[in-house]
Amino acid sequence: MNDSEIQAVLRALEENRSHRVGQLQELLRIPSVSADSRHHGDCRAAAQWVLAHLAASGCDAELVETAGLPIIYAEWTQAEGAPTALIYGHYDVQPPDPLDEWTTPAFEPTIRDGCLFARGATDDKGQVFTHMASIAAWLKTVGRLPVNVKVVIEGEEEVGSNNLERFLADQKKRLACDVAVVSDTAQYGNGIPAITYGLRGILACEVTVHGPRQDLHSGVFGGAVANPANVLCQLISRLHDSHGRIQIPGFYDAVVPLTDEERSAFAALPFDESAYCASLGIDALTGEVGYSTLERRWARPTCDVNGIFGGYQGEGPKTIVPARATAKITCRLVPHQDPVKLTQALEQFLRSQCPSGVRMEFRSYHGAPAVLCDTSSPYMAAARQAVEAGFGQPPVMIREGGTIPVVSSFKQILGVDTLLLGWGRNSDNLHSPNEHFHLDDFHHGTTASAHLWAALGA
Amino acid sequence: MNDSEIQAVLRALEENRSHRVGQLQELLRIPSVSADSRHHGDCRAAAQWVLAHLAASGCDAELVETAGLPIIYAEWTQAEGAPTALIYGHYDVQPPDPLDEWTTPAFEPTIRDGCLFARGATDDKGQVFTHMASIAAWLKTVGRLPVNVKVVIEGEEEVGSNNLERFLADQKKRLACDVAVVSDTAQYGNGIPAITYGLRGILACEVTVHGPRQDLHSGVFGGAVANPANVLCQLISRLHDSHGRIQIPGFYDAVVPLTDEERSAFAALPFDESAYCASLGIDALTGEVGYSTLERRWARPTCDVNGIFGGYQGEGPKTIVPARATAKITCRLVPHQDPVKLTQALEQFLRSQCPSGVRMEFRSYHGAPAVLCDTSSPYMAAARQAVEAGFGQPPVMIREGGTIPVVSSFKQILGVDTLLLGWGRNSDNLHSPNEHFHLDDFHHGTTASAHLWAALGA
Repeated sequence: MNDSEIQAVLRALEENRSHRVGQLQELLRIPSVSADSRHHGDCRAAAQWVLAHLAASGCDAELVETAGLPIIYAEWTQAEGAPTALIYGHYDVQPPDPLDEWTTPAFEPTIRDGCLFARGATDDKGQVFTHMASIAAWLKTVGRLPVNVKVVIEGEEEVGSNNLERFLADQKKRLACDVAVVSDTAQYGNGIPAITYGLRGILACEVTVHGPRQDLHSGVFGGAVANPANVLCQLISRLHDSHGRIQIPGFYDAVVPLTDEERSAFAALPFDESAYCASLGIDALTGEVGYSTLERRWARPTCDVNGIFGGYQGEGPKTIVPARATAKITCRLVPHQDPVKLTQALEQFLRSQCPSGVRMEFRSYHGAPAVLCDTSSPYMAAARQAVEAGFGQPPVMIREGGTIPVVSSFKQILGVDTLLLGWGRNSDNLHSPNEHFHLDDFHHGTTASAHLWAALGA
Repeated sequence: MNDSEIQAVLRALEENRSHRVGQLQELLRIPSVSADSRHHGDCRAAAQWVLAHLAASGCDAELVETAGLPIIYAEWTQAEGAPTALIYGHYDVQPPDPLDEWTTPAFEPTIRDGCLFARGATDDKGQVFTHMASIAAWLKTVGRLPVNVKVVIEGEEEVGSNNLERFLADQKKRLACDVAVVSDTAQYGNGIPAITYGLRGILACEVTVHGPRQDLHSGVFGGAVANPANVLCQLISRLHDSHGRIQIPGFYDAVVPLTDEERSAFAALPFDESAYCASLGIDALTGEVGYSTLERRWARPTCDVNGIFGGYQGEGPKTIVPARATAKITCRLVPHQDPVKLTQALEQFLRSQCPSGVRMEFRSYHGAPAVLCDTSSPYMAAARQAVEAGFGQPPVMIREGGTIPVVSSFKQILGVDTLLLGWGRNSDNLHSPNEHFHLDDFHHGTTASAHLWAALGA
């Protein structure tokens, strides 16, 4: 690698901007909602789009079938003696509901106020596409890359990546690498690029309280039969005490307290509570007593109801005792908490609290442990350098509250750390209506990615 | 009135049986579904049928237009010095869906196994027709009635009786009476005729907990913001203590305890708990500690969630903190509890429990007070005598857990108690496919009605 090469790549990226945005819009137009089986054809269409792009860039690319939606795998491995980076992303997206809260339709990508609005704009189509674009620019402009790259883009990230681990284990040899690169997180704030060295884990479940065989007249039967909706509320209310501490027995046993250094580093980051509240439309931040907001978000476990439903939901009143009520629950986990063990503990706790007259059904979804990466590795140094080059200032080192299960799989199966390079912003409405990606971030991220291959190869 | 008169009426009713069943079949053939505007022409046809029958009987009958479907009003008031009974019923019926579960079509009245099958067979065409038939028999056979009668048959009972209260208030003078008579309830059990002397009231509301402006990513934000679904569950869980007692301050203040006589009378009624559980598909009955199932259903107030919803309700998990969560709540009330005051108390209680970080919205619907009729009045004595004469055994005195708002309107507007004389059975499938009326019950009810006019006039 020499300086004229990266300069040529950067020039090409600069000239190519609007074409690149148009390409991303093509991909965003495909409603690849993995959670909804009616959209699985669209998921395959998105996979084909990614495959075609990587092949056209000059990588060896193929579609790998799984038990579910396919994985796109591509590689370019002619940088002899240079390290190998494994780039991971996903082409599937969250459901777009509630549809009526989108200003422009979720799958009609629209540019407004310097942002590209669409489901998947940042999470993750827009972010993973920065790497696809920088690889294409290197291969097209220079004819080669300064590192070896292996690209894995899956279609089931939003539903638990159920078939990815099997793929990683099966293809372990072929996927051998020195470091993984994932852009599925965010900058720390407006104009404050960041590298994320820690992620929370997750456990997810669904609990249904079953009562009478069918909805009952609340006048004729009310008071004499357990009401599944009231019981469900009781169960959920018992998950926390009045200090916001989770009451599942053993829940905190494995939690390692934050170090003083981390608490100081978190406290040193700029954070405007009132602006944060205003941006969310709430009047106060609340949570576990004794922790700051950043600590609560990044380094403390949670137990949130993601959805609840049962009985009559139409207009006006309806006088029934519902036959059943359901809650979807996720816990965010911190390093050393075991999702499998804690899912069992959660189920046991709920069962222990469940009164007679109802029957509790418990369904467990995917889980993933939390992750903490080595901040002193040469790869981390290369990443800092690339982000600074792309965004014009050095990144801050942060943790994130979300979960990227693949990061722990990379550690466990491939034995590598992951560089979590988030180009987006927390205010980009990922998982919400009006998801968007600032075009500046998209271009800075693409530039940083182009620099990253040079820095890793140096 | 003398004994030969009632004997003549009873003979006429006996001879007239099959003609009377044929008349009821005519009325049942009209699909007067008030909930479906495509059937409003049929509702008017049913109103005209009722009008014509009452006029042919010798009553002064008229059709009174309202803002919705018409009310049929008829009277015969030539029994000078005798009391006046106001008979209430409705000519509209529930929708017949699901159609494919009917053995014979809902609006093709068919006799099978001693029952007349049709939508409206008991609720309420068949039951109100017993009174129309007994009035006709008296006037035709004897040429007069032993009491004055005023008949109100409306067409919007199944959709909330929205125009009835206005009619009662407007026509208050004309409707002046001593007692009301309604046959829209049921016998206690198979072959156990009953008079219902108490009904529960109701208050209905909807509470929404609003959190962030939109659904948030549960990883990025979870733990730092109040979760509206978790908060809603907390609020609802606080409505009851572990003994099933409602925790709204002042909720029980106005409740008059059941008398020892009532508790004994309830306890003496046959009630098979395990058959009851089996019929509902539950393994245990639960409720307020210290009360029997009949007491809980008939004479204790409740606080039931009728519906709850918020966040993601689709397939699989979705990792969000929902923007809001809503519960529909009704309380069944017992005598002396004030629905307006208690709605305010419920709102205040929920607001007092609502933590910071969320905003609570409260919406109140229409309520109605409970009803308790004087069981020692001469009208009640007359009713007992008439039911015993009609059914061959004395009625049991029961309460019901449901609400019939017109009964409290009669008390509030006209100042009279109501005799709730149910000729049907709870197993008659009212509001369900294959609604039917046992012909024995139809004839016994008609006979009891004929006796009632004599007993009230005595």
